[in-house]
Amino acid sequence: MKTIDGILTRRTVTLKAVVSGTWEGRTVTVEGMIHALRDMGGMVFLTLRGPEGVLQCVFDRPALLEDVTEECAVAVTGVPHREPRAPGGVELAGLELELLSRPAGPLPVPISKRRLNLNLDTELSLRPVVLRALRERSIFRIQAGLCRAFRDTLHSLDFTEVHTPKIVHAGAEGGSNIFRLDYFGRKAFLAQSPQFYKQMMVGAYERVFEVAPVFRAEKHSTARHLNEYTSMDLEMGFIRSFEEIMAVETRFLQNAMDLLREEYAADVERLGIELPDVSSIPCLRFDEAKTLAAEKYGRPIRDPYDLEPEEELNIGRYVKEELGSVFVFVTHYPSKKRPFYAMDDPADPRFTLSFDLLFRGMEVTTGGQRIHEYQAQVEKMLARGMHPEEFESYLMIHKSGMPPHGGLGIGLERLTARLCGLDNVRHACLFPRDLSRLEP
Amino acid sequence: MKTIDGILTRRTVTLKAVVSGTWEGRTVTVEGMIHALRDMGGMVFLTLRGPEGVLQCVFDRPALLEDVTEECAVAVTGVPHREPRAPGGVELAGLELELLSRPAGPLPVPISKRRLNLNLDTELSLRPVVLRALRERSIFRIQAGLCRAFRDTLHSLDFTEVHTPKIVHAGAEGGSNIFRLDYFGRKAFLAQSPQFYKQMMVGAYERVFEVAPVFRAEKHSTARHLNEYTSMDLEMGFIRSFEEIMAVETRFLQNAMDLLREEYAADVERLGIELPDVSSIPCLRFDEAKTLAAEKYGRPIRDPYDLEPEEELNIGRYVKEELGSVFVFVTHYPSKKRPFYAMDDPADPRFTLSFDLLFRGMEVTTGGQRIHEYQAQVEKMLARGMHPEEFESYLMIHKSGMPPHGGLGIGLERLTARLCGLDNVRHACLFPRDLSRLEP
Repeated sequence: MKTIDGILTRRTVTLKAVVSGTWEGRTVTVEGMIHALRDMGGMVFLTLRGPEGVLQCVFDRPALLEDVTEECAVAVTGVPHREPRAPGGVELAGLELELLSRPAGPLPVPISKRRLNLNLDTELSLRPVVLRALRERSIFRIQAGLCRAFRDTLHSLDFTEVHTPKIVHAGAEGGSNIFRLDYFGRKAFLAQSPQFYKQMMVGAYERVFEVAPVFRAEKHSTARHLNEYTSMDLEMGFIRSFEEIMAVETRFLQNAMDLLREEYAADVERLGIELPDVSSIPCLRFDEAKTLAAEKYGRPIRDPYDLEPEEELNIGRYVKEELGSVFVFVTHYPSKKRPFYAMDDPADPRFTLSFDLLFRGMEVTTGGQRIHEYQAQVEKMLARGMHPEEFESYLMIHKSGMPPHGGLGIGLERLTARLCGLDNVRHACLFPRDLSRLEP
Repeated sequence: MKTIDGILTRRTVTLKAVVSGTWEGRTVTVEGMIHALRDMGGMVFLTLRGPEGVLQCVFDRPALLEDVTEECAVAVTGVPHREPRAPGGVELAGLELELLSRPAGPLPVPISKRRLNLNLDTELSLRPVVLRALRERSIFRIQAGLCRAFRDTLHSLDFTEVHTPKIVHAGAEGGSNIFRLDYFGRKAFLAQSPQFYKQMMVGAYERVFEVAPVFRAEKHSTARHLNEYTSMDLEMGFIRSFEEIMAVETRFLQNAMDLLREEYAADVERLGIELPDVSSIPCLRFDEAKTLAAEKYGRPIRDPYDLEPEEELNIGRYVKEELGSVFVFVTHYPSKKRPFYAMDDPADPRFTLSFDLLFRGMEVTTGGQRIHEYQAQVEKMLARGMHPEEFESYLMIHKSGMPPHGGLGIGLERLTARLCGLDNVRHACLFPRDLSRLEP
């Protein structure tokens, strides 16, 4: 009887281990894809690509490589030695090469080039292959690090992870930007946010989080919008102020920068990322931020109740110039611009106990305190012409008692794009969905 | 200028810390929901519910509690002392009570009862409140632990997390069980699995994983099916055999049981879970497993190419009785029952290099090796009457070279249900979607 015991014997050494120098002078076998091949007359340089970097292999018997091309999967046997001119400072003197698989044709794009310089549309169409390029690959390693830091931070703060449905019977954010689908003959929607569900779960677990896709059928095509994106959501009970939510986000960002510095250094360096200081993040009230930016940059305020993208950029610029921070919490958004579940400020109900986080002048987070009392929630819905009876299962939690609570949603792609200095959020989404793009 | 510095000062002590006994004899304030209230004539027992358990509080001044009911959010100040009859062995002598919020009406279900004994439909309709009950809550803490173990295991094995689109232009699994939606006037689908995308990412990261929703428009209503579920997917390159994938899954299960034993002990105990031994998992070939179960239980084989649910149960029973394992890998599924990307066994192409994991007689995982060579993949598609030109972006990776690779998908809800001994997978999904249920 065959059994599987969970013992994972690596036949080969990892590329990371070889580059770290551990195996210097010993014969090892390393697997990877051939990222680049250069014949220098008698000597062939093979750049082997592994999951976390590349290893330079040099062969003095070109015959061994006669049969291979870039993007062959191979196992290289050889002896690593120090070589300051090689990436990572280690080179492998190749002795043998085993071919594991080969491509069927030429690559659609020369991925071993330092910069691909493709136009956005071509790049996105070729993404399945473009992502093998080192720069592009590093973007999504940074993204994976941000996710890890988010979960690790929340886990350390006793948050419980939840998985809530994406096919829903009603939208949380209202408005027309919602995808519809046929659900066995009934009308259904794709969730714009896990808002209702994460609030429901606060009654059970006090603190919850979810990292999952959300869907917005927005009909405008900008460098800031995606029609499907990954939302990092949290919701927490027993808050005494919405500033506690901002404190949790700040803690997450601190942990994220530490994690990237420690465990993703090669990617940070490859992308030329300057990890921002997040030891403290300044806060400006919505009206105050608008005025400061308008005065400094001479741009009149057109709508006192909304922030235009250019105003966000100016607030970001103001905070950078005056306070030396790339982040700013803008607080107390106008009630009419926030959803029906936002708690109004008792001191001035035209505004809400809410915030956005701007990162280099772009909103990457929206959050705030929610209404927890049934009567107050029903009244706010009625005042907006909504029908509380359509939200029976949501209001069940308010009726059954809810602690004061609030939360936030972070757009993972925007956060990644801002951090990596990418000018279009599509660059920070593996396979973006926009008005015209549904493939790959 | 106000700033937020990420320092999270707890005004109160966590319930977990009080129950652990750390604060014995000192005056503390603990926040939570009032789970139960019992007036014993002069003495009132208040069960306070926190995120990870309950704390018994006793008040000898009933007047303090005159105004409160179950599911009020409160902050209780008092002195903890040992009391063997209290849950967790610690009781708090209550001195003060601050009311933070109150419910607007009676609860739709008495959640402090040990067993709710609701019928499934009522329970699911009342889920937003039912999940406050301790047993129901524990199920999803176990589920969160399984997710954590999955990610931690894969992270330790150098897997990279990816986020792939759920709105897609073609289904990965084929067939009719796919949800359609209108995407700005174009036909689109909800992803049945991240299959194509995780394979694409193997070319970039070698090893990838994703935990995300998948959607299946299956029109049958059983205790095993959900129309939306959470799939824990992984895909890895440079495998020499599909047994390496089974070894990774076994390692995950080992880590999961360890994590649940160490960090989720209260939930494991509350649900009466016997954590299975996963030190090694037996493997049976598909045809062998069918025959053994048919012979032992006298049930004739009706379809040699498929496993009926009853056959899966019998195989599970056979393995338990004969080999003492609740898990079994069934390998080498017939080619005609596996998708077009499954690699056929070179030794007998009627079968594939694939497996399912059965847990107590139910499939919880499907996995296997994939075709990595372009020509072989195109030929298999053509042999099935498919049109390779419709899969251009997928086949781009085969054309551009792919290492030998394979992976698996684990149904998180099924795994949770099997582990917790739940007879319907809906019990292991926070807000299940089925033929008739779209709400809450």
